[in-house]
Amino acid sequence: MSDFNKQAGSLTEKAGISPPEITNVSAINQIKNKRRQQPSAEELISGILLGNRTALSRAITLVESTNPEHTEKAEEIIKGCLPHANKSIRIGITGVPGVGKSTFIEAFGTYLTQAGKKVAVLAVDPSSTISHGSILGDKTRMEELVKDENAFIRPSASGENLGGVARKTRETIILCEAAGFDTIIIETVGVGQSETAVHSMVDFFLLLKISGAGDELQGIKRGIMEMADAIVINKADGDNIKKANQAKLEFNRALHLFPPKKSNWQPKVTTCSAITKDGISDIWNTISDYFEMTKESGFFQEKRNEQNHFWMMETINEQLKSNFYNQPGIIAQMEQIKKAVQNDEISPFAAAQFLLNEYKKGF
Amino acid sequence: MSDFNKQAGSLTEKAGISPPEITNVSAINQIKNKRRQQPSAEELISGILLGNRTALSRAITLVESTNPEHTEKAEEIIKGCLPHANKSIRIGITGVPGVGKSTFIEAFGTYLTQAGKKVAVLAVDPSSTISHGSILGDKTRMEELVKDENAFIRPSASGENLGGVARKTRETIILCEAAGFDTIIIETVGVGQSETAVHSMVDFFLLLKISGAGDELQGIKRGIMEMADAIVINKADGDNIKKANQAKLEFNRALHLFPPKKSNWQPKVTTCSAITKDGISDIWNTISDYFEMTKESGFFQEKRNEQNHFWMMETINEQLKSNFYNQPGIIAQMEQIKKAVQNDEISPFAAAQFLLNEYKKGF
Repeated sequence: MSDFNKQAGSLTEKAGISPPEITNVSAINQIKNKRRQQPSAEELISGILLGNRTALSRAITLVESTNPEHTEKAEEIIKGCLPHANKSIRIGITGVPGVGKSTFIEAFGTYLTQAGKKVAVLAVDPSSTISHGSILGDKTRMEELVKDENAFIRPSASGENLGGVARKTRETIILCEAAGFDTIIIETVGVGQSETAVHSMVDFFLLLKISGAGDELQGIKRGIMEMADAIVINKADGDNIKKANQAKLEFNRALHLFPPKKSNWQPKVTTCSAITKDGISDIWNTISDYFEMTKESGFFQEKRNEQNHFWMMETINEQLKSNFYNQPGIIAQMEQIKKAVQNDEISPFAAAQFLLNEYKKGF
Repeated sequence: MSDFNKQAGSLTEKAGISPPEITNVSAINQIKNKRRQQPSAEELISGILLGNRTALSRAITLVESTNPEHTEKAEEIIKGCLPHANKSIRIGITGVPGVGKSTFIEAFGTYLTQAGKKVAVLAVDPSSTISHGSILGDKTRMEELVKDENAFIRPSASGENLGGVARKTRETIILCEAAGFDTIIIETVGVGQSETAVHSMVDFFLLLKISGAGDELQGIKRGIMEMADAIVINKADGDNIKKANQAKLEFNRALHLFPPKKSNWQPKVTTCSAITKDGISDIWNTISDYFEMTKESGFFQEKRNEQNHFWMMETINEQLKSNFYNQPGIIAQMEQIKKAVQNDEISPFAAAQFLLNEYKKGF
């Protein structure tokens, strides 16, 4: 490590440089004291309910922590926030790198805050453990929104697996809603199953695309079109407008191949430009139509109930598996058993039965 | 129960009717004795390896039984058969009721036995617990094949869940292969996830369709087209030929929307008539091409290894869940916890954690 990395905290002045007059010394000391003494769960809950961003950020940090003490505290906070949550709309946005997700969310989020909404932008990116947050990590791509007092941006939690990242994001949604954010945007890139995870925690799922070399549908990820409530073709500006309209036609045709959705909602395809802002208000109108329709039909609440149930079951099933596969006795024998199955010495079912018996011995 | 149900066994003569001269009395007695004294696992294994159908049928019955003694014996038999299994090609056939699956399998199976193949026809139909085998149950629809000495037809095992039915079918495949059947056909109707289960136990997956009212792709089950290695449009005879060719075009176009398969195989669409036998040999040629290509590339063996691994993991995961959800302590509290989640009194994650702790107490 070079000295270069020993950066001073933003609240500390460099030696030999006197603080500028503008600095409020007592405010700095207050913040320093606050940081030293960890606020209690109750304090954080009241802070969140008052819309205090520092309290919200700290609670999210507790949710994301792997320290068991933090986890316990986080659970208490979530419990206190739950009765005040759920009064929002949750929008999932996905698209491969290069479609302009950040620029789109910047334009769309700013449109929403200008319309009086309070917008929280979260992300689910299980790859962020390695890349340390490839999405939302670079907040400079959302220059306006990051300064907007009616917006709150939080990069993806990191974690060893999607299940963990998804759980943390779900709980962060609850905290943001309790803090008064009425529109939750959850961004994801199509890494592994992350789109499915996001789809199962939002009310409305938006697929962002750009018009390409003509064959728009080639290589589109399986299942992704079936999940979409809207497909938005971004970068529909300048020379791209004609191609974008062509892509719109093609997607519309392809969507008709799918069976009708349980919501009875017919997915919409629109074009937009995050640069010229053309089409942004159309997207909001589409989303508003969706919420009006599904709230009236009862599908909105039904879907949320199903999602809650899904996440409870998912957590149980993941934990059961994790307990099994991490048991030392199972770890010790797994490779050998896998080989025996591969060499047809034992059937997959007999192998499973053998391992389950070994697992029970470890109780 | 009326007396009508007290049917005589096929080996018993009706009172007052003397056996026809053709009846071999000593053979009947031999079979009767065999039935009384249960053959040992070793005896059944040797019988199966000699291609004895009675031994094969009995072993399958043991595989299908829920009696723990039978299960143990079945495991022993499978272990003995495993080194002699796997030398076959496994073909899955799916299609909704009305596409003529039985008639197709009759025509296709007969074509294969005439070409010198030994064909076993199995089924995966989890609904058969209620309907007592809606597919393959009525063997009269396969009149020729059922009499064919080079064919073996076995209706679907019954069971409370797909996992159980699938496991029994997987093990039956091993027994049939050890008995010398070189072509295994597994039929399924699209009930729940049964197509996915069959897809994960076969080498080649064939979707049977008929030409319809024009919009062929409307309402087609999600994922099913992506699994298909071939789509066969049946009943392409008489007035239907033109419509069938139109459907072929449409399916071909739709298949191009999907990303390339891991096998690099480009799925084929063909038409056929199980009545006139037109197109039956084309289907076999397509299947042969597939096996030639995937055996050469190594994909064939790779897929089988993956399937073995998949079924081992699947069995473990299913069993872990079944142990959890059937524990009396969990059953007693589940409904209340579900309600608490629904009423936002507890988060889905906290609820899961609570139940997992309760489960551990029961060890």
